[in-house]
Amino acid sequence: ARPRVGYFYAGKKSAQALGDTMNNMKVKDFQSMPVVVRESVSVYDAICQMFLEDVGTLFVVDEQSLLVGVLSRKDLLRTSIGRQELNQIPVHIIMTRMPNITTCKKSESLIEVSRRLIEQQIDAVPVVAEEPAGLRVTGRITKTTITRAFLSLSESHEL
Amino acid sequence: ARPRVGYFYAGKKSAQALGDTMNNMKVKDFQSMPVVVRESVSVYDAICQMFLEDVGTLFVVDEQSLLVGVLSRKDLLRTSIGRQELNQIPVHIIMTRMPNITTCKKSESLIEVSRRLIEQQIDAVPVVAEEPAGLRVTGRITKTTITRAFLSLSESHEL
Repeated sequence: ARPRVGYFYAGKKSAQALGDTMNNMKVKDFQSMPVVVRESVSVYDAICQMFLEDVGTLFVVDEQSLLVGVLSRKDLLRTSIGRQELNQIPVHIIMTRMPNITTCKKSESLIEVSRRLIEQQIDAVPVVAEEPAGLRVTGRITKTTITRAFLSLSESHEL
Repeated sequence: ARPRVGYFYAGKKSAQALGDTMNNMKVKDFQSMPVVVRESVSVYDAICQMFLEDVGTLFVVDEQSLLVGVLSRKDLLRTSIGRQELNQIPVHIIMTRMPNITTCKKSESLIEVSRRLIEQQIDAVPVVAEEPAGLRVTGRITKTTITRAFLSLSESHEL
C-alpha cells in the first residue's frame, strides 16, 4: 500500500455526506445534563440554582422525580421585577406546567427538536423517558445544543 | 417537453448541495432587527423593553447611536435579585462594555458567527458597521437565528 503522506488528511468527511450526517444527529448524542429543582423551592432559590449551574432553563420535578414544570430565565425575570418576596413564592406558582410542556425523546433527530424549539418559541426542551407514573427527565436540548450541532456539521465536513 | 406531473416536486435541492448552501449562509440573509436602549435608561426600563420586544439581549448605544454595551437576560436577572432599586440604576453600570463585546459583520458566514457564540458562551451578537467614530448596530444574530438556519437546511434539501 502507498504510504500516507503528510498532506493527506482523513479527519473530515466529504460535503456529500452532510445530509446523512445531519439526518443521523440524534438527541441522545447531543443532549446535556438536565438541571432540576423541586416544585416546593422558592423562586429565589431557583434563580440561585440557575446561576450556579449556568443554565437558561430549569426543569421542575415532584417527589418521584417526575416532570411537573419548566422555568425559563424569562419566567424568573418576570417574577423578580414584581412586588412579591422571592423567598416566599414557590416555583410551582410561576412555572409552565404539564401538559403544556414540549418534550423530546432520546431517539428523536435534532432536526425534529429544532423544529419544535422554533415553532413553540422556547429555548430548551427536556429529554424524557415515559414511565407508568409520568415522564422522567433524562437530559436537555437547547438552542445552544443546536448551534453546536450546526457548527459541528461544518467542522466535520470538507465544505 | 414532457409535462410536469403532480408528484414532481422541484422545491427542494439535493442533499449534495447542502455543503454549498451552508457555506453561503450569510449574516445579512438571516439577521433580525436589533433592539437598542440608551446607556442612561434604568435597569427597570431595560427589563420592560426586553419583555415588550421579546428578545433575550439588548444592545446599548450612545447619543450617536454607536455601540457601547450589551445587556443579556442573565445580566438583568442578576441585578434584579440584588438589593438595589432597579429604577435608580442606569444600565451602563451593569452592561458588558466595549471593547469586550463580540460582534459580527453582515458579510460574514453563519458558520463563523456560530463558532463565536459557542466559544464566547453568549446568546447573541450585534451585527455592526464600522464608522470613523465607532460601531453602528444594524442587526442581531442569536442562537435562535442559528437554530432556524439549521432547520432551514433540512427543509430546503432532500435529506
